[in-house]
Amino acid sequence: MAPLPSGAGVGSSVAAIVTVADARRAIDDKTKPPGSLGALEAWAVQLAGIQGTLTPRITRARVLVFGADHGVAAEGVSAYPPQVTGEMMRNFSRGGAAINVLTRANDLEIEVIDVGVDADLAQLPGITHAAVRRGSANLLRTAAMTDAECEAAVAVGRSAVQRAAGDGVQAIGLGEMGIGNTTAAAAVLSALTGAAPAVTVGRGTGVDDARLAHKRDVVTRALARHATRTTPMGILAALGGLELAAIAGAALEAPRHGIAVVADGFISTVATLAAVRRDPSIRGHLFFAHRSAEAGHAVALDALDARPMLDLGLRLGEGTGAALALPLLRAAAAVMAEMATFAGAGVSRDR
Amino acid sequence: MAPLPSGAGVGSSVAAIVTVADARRAIDDKTKPPGSLGALEAWAVQLAGIQGTLTPRITRARVLVFGADHGVAAEGVSAYPPQVTGEMMRNFSRGGAAINVLTRANDLEIEVIDVGVDADLAQLPGITHAAVRRGSANLLRTAAMTDAECEAAVAVGRSAVQRAAGDGVQAIGLGEMGIGNTTAAAAVLSALTGAAPAVTVGRGTGVDDARLAHKRDVVTRALARHATRTTPMGILAALGGLELAAIAGAALEAPRHGIAVVADGFISTVATLAAVRRDPSIRGHLFFAHRSAEAGHAVALDALDARPMLDLGLRLGEGTGAALALPLLRAAAAVMAEMATFAGAGVSRDR
Repeated sequence: MAPLPSGAGVGSSVAAIVTVADARRAIDDKTKPPGSLGALEAWAVQLAGIQGTLTPRITRARVLVFGADHGVAAEGVSAYPPQVTGEMMRNFSRGGAAINVLTRANDLEIEVIDVGVDADLAQLPGITHAAVRRGSANLLRTAAMTDAECEAAVAVGRSAVQRAAGDGVQAIGLGEMGIGNTTAAAAVLSALTGAAPAVTVGRGTGVDDARLAHKRDVVTRALARHATRTTPMGILAALGGLELAAIAGAALEAPRHGIAVVADGFISTVATLAAVRRDPSIRGHLFFAHRSAEAGHAVALDALDARPMLDLGLRLGEGTGAALALPLLRAAAAVMAEMATFAGAGVSRDR
Repeated sequence: MAPLPSGAGVGSSVAAIVTVADARRAIDDKTKPPGSLGALEAWAVQLAGIQGTLTPRITRARVLVFGADHGVAAEGVSAYPPQVTGEMMRNFSRGGAAINVLTRANDLEIEVIDVGVDADLAQLPGITHAAVRRGSANLLRTAAMTDAECEAAVAVGRSAVQRAAGDGVQAIGLGEMGIGNTTAAAAVLSALTGAAPAVTVGRGTGVDDARLAHKRDVVTRALARHATRTTPMGILAALGGLELAAIAGAALEAPRHGIAVVADGFISTVATLAAVRRDPSIRGHLFFAHRSAEAGHAVALDALDARPMLDLGLRLGEGTGAALALPLLRAAAAVMAEMATFAGAGVSRDR
């Protein structure tokens, strides 16, 4: 499916005919006390707006997992060695990772995209090969990417959404894999919001106190080095990573196709925040899967005025939170589309 | 499947060979930072214990919805007229209620059981007809049920679980429908825990302030009338309802078959609390779907030392919260059973 011109996509053009009031009225007419399905009702109303119909459907949902390496991993900011990114891509390929298990368990599709892993994955089956470069540069020493590379990674994310749209997918989850990417995401978050590294940098995969202090120092120095970059895309290029840029691209593209977006945890939410700063009109298409145990996630969620769907103490990434949240969106759509009305079912209303 | 003697069921006998330490070790060996799947890991460990295997599975899960009427509805304690119970049973039968939609959306089975609705439902298809009597008596004036009726309702719940076990179901959700049942559940909760009606009585389907005050007064007077009933089953008979007794029976029966139990919201949790008071050994088989918006639910959860799986502001009942939580348990089992290990996948460990 070719990309549609902005503002003329399936979702945006049709959505205008379903107002929040219409959707609210429709759900209040269902056989249940008003408001008794809580957050599910709010999600159903939001989905009705996104799809431009009072019978929204999520029959196909897909998790996109963007993998990339980070030059900053050389600074010793992770509990795991950098080669784990490539090793996990092989694990994804074989279907043994958490995100494989969770998408299978929840009847979701998955696409894993190499947007910049520092390993030779050319022969790896079941992976979309779209590496812009073999890992970003060390953001403590230089820009993580050139602006052109960042735009290319954004385009990789857009392309993945265009494929999903062509396949009839109505909702996507956005996940990632990349040793070192909580450092990059914390730097991007600090640069976007002004929040101190003390609150944006967390333990990631599980670093100890000494490494946490070092990680904060790395981010503090990186922020000073790249202080002249202030636009969302400039910040992503200087301090981010290829998978963050790709996630931002996916979040920017999905609304043009009427596709709902579920951000996963810390890294995914930070990338989505960059996308919203670039184009605030996409905010209404976004859902936030869960409240991560990673320290900086609360900062990112607050910056987006977002209330996450789940709170399970997850801190794995890969899109695992999105894979657990997507069934809730599917259920919310079904409530709106399938539940009987009081009149239709002959059920008495409250007195 | 015939009921197994207590303590010799599939779950209880086999479970002894899988310790929490075994299960914890197995999940820490999966390709993810230790603990990074948060609550999912705890549920996976609990399921391994329940099923007595390091590869637990939930391939079939079923929501049991027990419907019954309440004599106390005549006191005007609900926002809805009593005939709504029967009308909703017809809605369940036609597949138009929220629980029908959510079980379909999440690939769950459903069984709706008439354990005491005050309507002629004999010709209603797709319903299990097991009414003990046509609604309980008015608990403000007399015992809601005789002890024999309460035991019969408990047996209805046990039978439903025996059918599920015979069908190979590994997890059940416990839901209910019954106008007036938040009043009965609040009375049972106060009697079981000593908590005042001020904290156990809430707005149910949505009563206004005046009716809420009246509802609290009804419960206060009922507690005084039945103060001599102090055993869990005595309290259920005097102050409960037929669907509460059936839920308690289901919760008591499931562990004998190695079946995991997901309590739904306020009413279901209170009935489950009564079951735990009767037989504390069942506690390890229980999960709690969500934190209900109904006021007294927090009291019941605290009494069970339970941390609910979801917090979505639900207050509908029917088993809707359980239908949203069961996919999380299915996913947790799949994580334990299907994820690759570090060694198996050739992924480097943390340093």
